[in-house]
Amino acid sequence: MLIEQASAAGWQVQKRPAQMTRRLDFSSYSETRVFLDQLAELSERTGYFPNLNFGKTHVNVSIAARGDSLDQEELDFASQVDALAGQPQGQS
Amino acid sequence: MLIEQASAAGWQVQKRPAQMTRRLDFSSYSETRVFLDQLAELSERTGYFPNLNFGKTHVNVSIAARGDSLDQEELDFASQVDALAGQPQGQS
Repeated sequence: MLIEQASAAGWQVQKRPAQMTRRLDFSSYSETRVFLDQLAELSERTGYFPNLNFGKTHVNVSIAARGDSLDQEELDFASQVDALAGQPQGQS
Repeated sequence: MLIEQASAAGWQVQKRPAQMTRRLDFSSYSETRVFLDQLAELSERTGYFPNLNFGKTHVNVSIAARGDSLDQEELDFASQVDALAGQPQGQS
């Protein structure tokens, strides 16, 4: 996924510090938990652990760039998050 | 648990807005996940869903007062969080 696609997919992309954040809403806590469990497995598979801020029916995912700007691996992780959330990848 | 005990147990207690926040650190992601899963079960049992902000080896738990100040139910939830985290309840 490219930076332009990230914005189209609903990510807020910031330059300083370089990071991308997305809020995902769910209709029930059990849906939120399913998403969080899947994201945990994705993190364990990829070794990438985004900062997550969540309540009963929302999750804010923040992917901070390890370097000066977001790299391809971080952008690809973001599109995998979109896939988990059932959003078409790279499209809003 | 009383407000004084909450501070002793490591909670930052705020008046406006009335909330209490605590950071818990873990030595591995799997430990973080065990805690989050237990906290999810506690939330489902009590119907209380604190705001959680976590990364690979830390969790920030924020309990916002539903009223003007923290009530006994919220303080009791906080001490159950302490118990899950293996901290002695109400003592630092």
